[in-house]
Amino acid sequence: MASLRTRLWPTWFYGDGAKQLLEDPVVVEEPLEILLHLHGEADPMPLTVTMRTPGDDVELVAGLLYTEGIVERPTDIVRMETEADPNRPTENRVTAYLAAGIGLEQHEIARSFLSNSACGVCGKSAVDSIFIHRLPNLPSGPHVAPDVLQRLPSLMRSGQDTFQRTGGIHAAALFDERGELLLLREDVGRHNAVDKLIGTLLLEGRLPVAPSILLASGRIGFEITQKVLRAGIPILAAVGAPTSLSLRLAERGGLTLIGFLGEDRLNLYTHPARLKPSST
Amino acid sequence: MASLRTRLWPTWFYGDGAKQLLEDPVVVEEPLEILLHLHGEADPMPLTVTMRTPGDDVELVAGLLYTEGIVERPTDIVRMETEADPNRPTENRVTAYLAAGIGLEQHEIARSFLSNSACGVCGKSAVDSIFIHRLPNLPSGPHVAPDVLQRLPSLMRSGQDTFQRTGGIHAAALFDERGELLLLREDVGRHNAVDKLIGTLLLEGRLPVAPSILLASGRIGFEITQKVLRAGIPILAAVGAPTSLSLRLAERGGLTLIGFLGEDRLNLYTHPARLKPSST
Repeated sequence: MASLRTRLWPTWFYGDGAKQLLEDPVVVEEPLEILLHLHGEADPMPLTVTMRTPGDDVELVAGLLYTEGIVERPTDIVRMETEADPNRPTENRVTAYLAAGIGLEQHEIARSFLSNSACGVCGKSAVDSIFIHRLPNLPSGPHVAPDVLQRLPSLMRSGQDTFQRTGGIHAAALFDERGELLLLREDVGRHNAVDKLIGTLLLEGRLPVAPSILLASGRIGFEITQKVLRAGIPILAAVGAPTSLSLRLAERGGLTLIGFLGEDRLNLYTHPARLKPSST
Repeated sequence: MASLRTRLWPTWFYGDGAKQLLEDPVVVEEPLEILLHLHGEADPMPLTVTMRTPGDDVELVAGLLYTEGIVERPTDIVRMETEADPNRPTENRVTAYLAAGIGLEQHEIARSFLSNSACGVCGKSAVDSIFIHRLPNLPSGPHVAPDVLQRLPSLMRSGQDTFQRTGGIHAAALFDERGELLLLREDVGRHNAVDKLIGTLLLEGRLPVAPSILLASGRIGFEITQKVLRAGIPILAAVGAPTSLSLRLAERGGLTLIGFLGEDRLNLYTHPARLKPSST
């Protein structure tokens, strides 16, 4: 049962008035150090350390660099080097080698990384500042029926290997307007799952992506909304609640935001024109 | 229904085959800029920007400074100045004035804040590094019955004003071994809820706290575990799943960690001696 993403832990299960000791699969969380190598520089510079579930590390880094506005296209990253020693899991490391001309403005690093702490918002201290990034113009579609949307959470869960084993991992999934699953990524961090998904799209040359729907597990905060906007995905849906700041950003950015998505319900918060009558 | 912590948003509710437009209360998420004023310096220095739910800002900052190892006792903070203009919510700011002798090692800032990004772990890149902080020796108690623990989630939810209105806010609650609620704090970020709770204890002179139980909503990652250990709370319980790194840290730190806590079940992962037979 154990894998890169899960680990077995001896656990006392209490239930039905009894207890028993079993091996419980838990989701792996480990630090990943990310370094940037700027063209012409001798040494890479440390950019950040993120806690993530191993797997898709290169995609995670590509997605983070994209959603932070450091790279625009796959060719902006010349190559990536990963170092991962299973016996020393705290020393996982990815170095991204950037193409000539892809620089990092000092104020950009400062805004993105230095002034951030426990929140995961990467230091963008106001809704306005997100518009510093070149956000794509979102397409007017796709136009989706509510009943199609309501099927997506169970489709996502059935594709989530690690969640089914651990109950402790977030996911981001991309669907087309007919509810076909296009791509799914998991991570212990919600934002990392989104970055892994967007990074995969970037590296496969699929950005800007065809009109589609991103479904996120959990709640929707500012950070997730910003990442989805940046990737040009016009519909963001989640099983959980949105925050006030995510709604303000979605409203301004032209994004259709849907929360509390369940089998027989949903809340539609912004840009309702992308919802059409039910297909049944 | 609107308050400091919630805001009404015009929302289309889809359900039972119909839709209607209503005002939905959503949880407020806004950036808070945190500045440190070191004794003898002319100007405060920006420490970080965090996305949080307004309210208990001073407690949040105190808790963050404590859990990051920057302060040890309430008198290490001479005073805090808050600036909050309801009309300019993106400019909330707290400045903490530190006592003489309370400095910030450059490497400490670097470790804590500069090398961090989307994860919220504040740059501590290995389990080992947490032990740089002077962690308290945890008491051998409290000794708690499983059925007492299993009552805590519903007790916490019934105390959560904002959750009941929005469904979108995390909480941290402190209980004694008989299941009495001692303290509850809410925030859009799980770690912020814990920092608000610990900061309240610090400012009230209640750290190290009497043997007690911290219940967190959501899952348990490394960061939450580290904060609870640092506050000297011997039992950490959550409704959700723990990560592998939180278990390793709990194991090493002497912390009893409980996940998947529900009305009729729980998983006991580490240091089981603090659980006693059921009281019924």
